[in-house]
Amino acid sequence: MTACLIALVLAQTPANVADRLRIKGLNELGAHRMLTDLCTNIGNRIAGSDNAARAVAWAEAQMKGMDLANVRQIACKVPHWVRGPVEKAQIVGGDALTICALGGSAGTPAGGVTAEVIEVHSLDEVGKLGDAVKGKIVFYNRPFDQSLPSPFAAYGAAGDQRFAGPAVAAKTGAVATLVRSMTHDHDDVPHTGTTRFQGVAPSPAAALGLASADKLSRMLKADPHLKVTIELSCEKLPDVDSASVIGEIVGSENPNEVIVLGGHLDSWDKGQGAHDDGAGVTQSLEALRLLAALGLHPKRTIRAVAFMDEESGGEGAEAYAAWVKGNGEKPYMACESDSGGFMPRGFGVTQNKLGKVRGWQKHFAPFGIERFTAGGGGADVGPLAPLGATLFGLQPEGQRYFDYHHSDKDTIDKVNPRELEMGAIAMALLAWMVSEQGL
Amino acid sequence: MTACLIALVLAQTPANVADRLRIKGLNELGAHRMLTDLCTNIGNRIAGSDNAARAVAWAEAQMKGMDLANVRQIACKVPHWVRGPVEKAQIVGGDALTICALGGSAGTPAGGVTAEVIEVHSLDEVGKLGDAVKGKIVFYNRPFDQSLPSPFAAYGAAGDQRFAGPAVAAKTGAVATLVRSMTHDHDDVPHTGTTRFQGVAPSPAAALGLASADKLSRMLKADPHLKVTIELSCEKLPDVDSASVIGEIVGSENPNEVIVLGGHLDSWDKGQGAHDDGAGVTQSLEALRLLAALGLHPKRTIRAVAFMDEESGGEGAEAYAAWVKGNGEKPYMACESDSGGFMPRGFGVTQNKLGKVRGWQKHFAPFGIERFTAGGGGADVGPLAPLGATLFGLQPEGQRYFDYHHSDKDTIDKVNPRELEMGAIAMALLAWMVSEQGL
Repeated sequence: MTACLIALVLAQTPANVADRLRIKGLNELGAHRMLTDLCTNIGNRIAGSDNAARAVAWAEAQMKGMDLANVRQIACKVPHWVRGPVEKAQIVGGDALTICALGGSAGTPAGGVTAEVIEVHSLDEVGKLGDAVKGKIVFYNRPFDQSLPSPFAAYGAAGDQRFAGPAVAAKTGAVATLVRSMTHDHDDVPHTGTTRFQGVAPSPAAALGLASADKLSRMLKADPHLKVTIELSCEKLPDVDSASVIGEIVGSENPNEVIVLGGHLDSWDKGQGAHDDGAGVTQSLEALRLLAALGLHPKRTIRAVAFMDEESGGEGAEAYAAWVKGNGEKPYMACESDSGGFMPRGFGVTQNKLGKVRGWQKHFAPFGIERFTAGGGGADVGPLAPLGATLFGLQPEGQRYFDYHHSDKDTIDKVNPRELEMGAIAMALLAWMVSEQGL
Repeated sequence: MTACLIALVLAQTPANVADRLRIKGLNELGAHRMLTDLCTNIGNRIAGSDNAARAVAWAEAQMKGMDLANVRQIACKVPHWVRGPVEKAQIVGGDALTICALGGSAGTPAGGVTAEVIEVHSLDEVGKLGDAVKGKIVFYNRPFDQSLPSPFAAYGAAGDQRFAGPAVAAKTGAVATLVRSMTHDHDDVPHTGTTRFQGVAPSPAAALGLASADKLSRMLKADPHLKVTIELSCEKLPDVDSASVIGEIVGSENPNEVIVLGGHLDSWDKGQGAHDDGAGVTQSLEALRLLAALGLHPKRTIRAVAFMDEESGGEGAEAYAAWVKGNGEKPYMACESDSGGFMPRGFGVTQNKLGKVRGWQKHFAPFGIERFTAGGGGADVGPLAPLGATLFGLQPEGQRYFDYHHSDKDTIDKVNPRELEMGAIAMALLAWMVSEQGL
């Protein structure tokens, strides 16, 4: 071997690559620079919106700017729901309540709908109430279980009220639905998110800030016949052509085996979509930027994917998986970051690969990664599992995520540049390890 | 055994105690309630100040309110440095610079001192410059090393500029010292902290916000003879009588073997001393509150200690250790929380007990604790080691700590109630495990 080749091989031990990623990443903090640009110069970017189209062009420009190969858009058609200018709720003869429409909600007639409110704590309860719900506003008010250590577990346990509660209420004859926001944070900022009207026409559905939910509950105890007026201007427009964006470093030995790092480019139309999921997109971009800028030449192809439309249907993820299948390439591994740009704590990984990757753990410890646990994946990379990909999911510290999630509070000032970068570095290192050592 | 006794024993397995602490702690979030009270109704509380005296009374009242035994003050005499109303710096013929005096700094004459500025990056450099420093303002501008994953390591590597830099400058004949603030955060908020003038009379010394440090450095490149005026009104007043505060749950079998949970009650005179170290004090109090309220009867004595004067000399810690020694009791274990009220990640522990406590790790995982590592202790519990105590230190996630540390940004809004409580629960569980199983 020439000295140059020896130096090159030495330079590509896991420990050395980890060091180089750490030094370049933490000194340059590129993920936060990109996220600041996305959040402040584009802002939030719900699927189908002009901002989402701008974000597609932005992601493509970022990838081209870092000299990734095969930068392209993967077309998809996405739903286009718009909030419109009006969303308000008022206790008749009383205070205003702070609300925001849920994604997928129908609007109300001008002037709103006015009805008595019936407070419930589960979907079952609505079924049992039956006719008593007809003509009423159903108010789901089961809070997050504070005693659960994981806020994601609390979200999972309360989330059916938002995902499916409005449909159950509509089927039972309710005229509208209010849902306590999915958060631990006791302020009055409402948190939106998708609701599904399967088998029933959409009806008006909105989230209440926690202070408003508590107030309404208190007022209902004093006057069970209290009425509320809800007025929403949201509506569903025709589907829109959109796209996910990809760019890659082509593998030197197995270019057809593809390692994906991804997050979603769309967000809700609240705040700036900083943690959800500008963080995951910019971490994926930054991981590729670091690998490319360090002149690393992976054996397998490493690709960044900025998925479109995670929030309202996953059309981008489906279209990407279909494109991959048609392309005849082999999805080897896919890692999603969609749990916020907080300090990394671990990776979830498909069960049967746990043994292998746990052997790598020491290299990840400087970036906060102290566990590889069974699990992994996420909504966007999920469709790649049936095609053979091993799935990973970045697991950041989660206590603050639902304080901001889907609300006006999800802004760039809530993201710590170093915490965000640690995730990008961990993803870059993971892609490198998988590329060089296989799974 | 009677059914009642069996139930009691069952109820005190580690898993069951962990569950009960979790449910009560996370539902009630008592640490944050206390910290909000301390931060908003008293505020910052530098040793020797009226606020520090109020904080002593507050801690005593908290302990009595939760029915702890043997609540008392342990007297100490503390330094009394005051900032006074004036602290300003101005480039002569140019912009103002954002500064704050370092704790221990001398004041300037009215009208300030005006001199040329010499920028350096190490204490050694000052020594080498020798006479060139005479009559100048020394400006230490070595930044935090961003590439170090741990901000505590970056603080350790840069901190000599603040701790000892002003003394070195004064000995070499400088008229004043400016130090780049000890932080990663690129705003213009200055961060104070202790500086020591050993073997030399105190001289004026202040921290610069990072933006001001960068500006001054830039301006010096354009004009090496640029002058700056610094005016400080700080001064050292006579020492003041103060106290640490203790309260306990007396052990049922080995009351003379004492387990300490502690943090420091004093803070800097900036912000509200929320993370540093209202967090550690209220976590210690909350740990005792939870154990007491759950009716747990530990075999060994578990004591909360709110230490006075960690920041400016550790007089409270020394006085407490002397009191313990005079008392004939056995300091069995002491755990300090003084690294911020962020999500717990681990405990440092005296090396020779690592094997034992690692066996307990699974019980701590729900509270974010995923490692027991060699180390442990802290400035306040350190003096208990020679008396036989095994030392622990709570290790929270640290990326954000120096963004707030010793500055106007260390306020209650930076503390997440659940993250803070997780630390309190982990400390309560640790005290319980040590009490029941020994070390």
